[in-house]
Amino acid sequence: MSLQLTILGCHSATPRTFAHPTSQFLEINNRAFLIDCGEGTQVQLRKYKIKFSKIDNIFISHLHGDHFFGLIGLISTFGLLNRQNDLHIYGPKGIREIIELQLKLSNSYLQFDLVFHELESDESKLIYEDDKVEVHTIPLEHRVYTNGFLFKEKLGERKLNIEAVKENPEIEICDYQNLKNGKDFIAEDGTVIANDLLTFSPPKPISYAYCSDTVYKPEITSVIKEVDLLYHESTFLKDREELTGTTKHSTAEQAALIAQKANAGQLILGHYSSRYPDIKLFEKEAKTVFDNVSLAEPGKVFIITSKVSEELLLAHQN
Amino acid sequence: MSLQLTILGCHSATPRTFAHPTSQFLEINNRAFLIDCGEGTQVQLRKYKIKFSKIDNIFISHLHGDHFFGLIGLISTFGLLNRQNDLHIYGPKGIREIIELQLKLSNSYLQFDLVFHELESDESKLIYEDDKVEVHTIPLEHRVYTNGFLFKEKLGERKLNIEAVKENPEIEICDYQNLKNGKDFIAEDGTVIANDLLTFSPPKPISYAYCSDTVYKPEITSVIKEVDLLYHESTFLKDREELTGTTKHSTAEQAALIAQKANAGQLILGHYSSRYPDIKLFEKEAKTVFDNVSLAEPGKVFIITSKVSEELLLAHQN
Repeated sequence: MSLQLTILGCHSATPRTFAHPTSQFLEINNRAFLIDCGEGTQVQLRKYKIKFSKIDNIFISHLHGDHFFGLIGLISTFGLLNRQNDLHIYGPKGIREIIELQLKLSNSYLQFDLVFHELESDESKLIYEDDKVEVHTIPLEHRVYTNGFLFKEKLGERKLNIEAVKENPEIEICDYQNLKNGKDFIAEDGTVIANDLLTFSPPKPISYAYCSDTVYKPEITSVIKEVDLLYHESTFLKDREELTGTTKHSTAEQAALIAQKANAGQLILGHYSSRYPDIKLFEKEAKTVFDNVSLAEPGKVFIITSKVSEELLLAHQN
Repeated sequence: MSLQLTILGCHSATPRTFAHPTSQFLEINNRAFLIDCGEGTQVQLRKYKIKFSKIDNIFISHLHGDHFFGLIGLISTFGLLNRQNDLHIYGPKGIREIIELQLKLSNSYLQFDLVFHELESDESKLIYEDDKVEVHTIPLEHRVYTNGFLFKEKLGERKLNIEAVKENPEIEICDYQNLKNGKDFIAEDGTVIANDLLTFSPPKPISYAYCSDTVYKPEITSVIKEVDLLYHESTFLKDREELTGTTKHSTAEQAALIAQKANAGQLILGHYSSRYPDIKLFEKEAKTVFDNVSLAEPGKVFIITSKVSEELLLAHQN
């Protein structure tokens, strides 16, 4: 089980030659998701050699241009590339109308189905689920209706402790799946061998929380508690904290406070205001509150790999 | 009087790292116009150091994404930059609905007025006029309603032949404007000095025709007759001519035929299909029909300066 997050763009407001608006490509537990899609995202995807065919689900946090103006272009390109698979779009109510109007007026007929999942709730909801991953909304507070997204691996199967299994000749290959599913083994004479003597716990599921754009909202920490990786916007530094009230953005310090309260494993900052030429200042400010801080930068890749839990590895070695 | 055309993007279909969809910035007779606005145009404007404040009029040929997906982003950026001047948008009916819907759903309130000039006619119309320049539509034939645009300098004032004027001491400074306007000078004794003995003809007005996207349509040559500079799309080479019927695009040879029939001064090709890695082939093909051919490339600048007509310069020298 693993997570790989590629930053495609991480600056606020307007795109510039070397400042790309928000978009991220997430691979988690062999599933792929595009998160937000500012203008130029399709060019960034090509630049970082991310296959368009991997993208079946796109999550849009809110309808400010720096988070979705690249969506219609990407959809059109999928059409030109003769895509066949359904494309699922998760985003605020209204997103369907915007996309469908543009397709209609450009006389575009897609060969694939666009499936819209319009969001309206102010509570955290499960909006995507398959056998590997689930995605929940994180209700944020911004100038328009906005959600963050929490991506969580599902708990995998238990791993066979092959040595222990082999010591019990009665266990046959056809029993393995039951063991992986957590069932105890019952021998013909009725003896029960507890499952945890025959298997290891599955790797700890990894989770990623994407929180942009939002004012400081500590209530979200109940949703993202113990998240492994947290991206939280930090449009401003503390020196402009007075702007966060009207613009509904956060400072780097506030992002770090969220990471601290949620007991996150690692914090990534981004959505920097162009007022600040030196983004290192964001890291510095956040580190006064929370240790494990990184800066989002276009092309940067974050990887997290979960191992079988250490405790059980030791049991295996004994 | 002069014309300066900067190519911001000139490739068809989808944007790539080094292939930008169509947009051009035209300065003609001290007026500035943005023509089409594919995704990423605002980044190209910054790259080529074109001041956003120069843009008060944007002309959109048609509602295919590679010609207008960058418009909403540019308008939003104007908003963030606190623009105050009206912004005029000329484009097919429907463009207003697309832009206004996106502004509404993103809760954006612009401090400037967006003035839409929606086009529906299938005939060439005068759609812009001031004291320096006029702009006419060029009805094109594509898969959706499409116009090209003809930008024409207005005939300027006549230039004083200072030597000839000085030889007539009766002519005073207060008479100069009448001479520039073409009036003869009438001395106190009733003697008439013909205007063309005292002035030179004004520089020949320069014109630029933008024709993209379109199938080969020789009827347009009546609208663009004698144009100084013609941009005509050439999506394909002759080897794919069979595709022009369904896609409603042109070959390089067809673009050259239009230039020839219109007796254009110079032809610029563009809107190349990504099928062709070597765009020099477009130039080669067009040159079999028309001599003065150039290739559009991002960042390329075309300059035309009109001089006082040579004939009158000779008269002046005698």
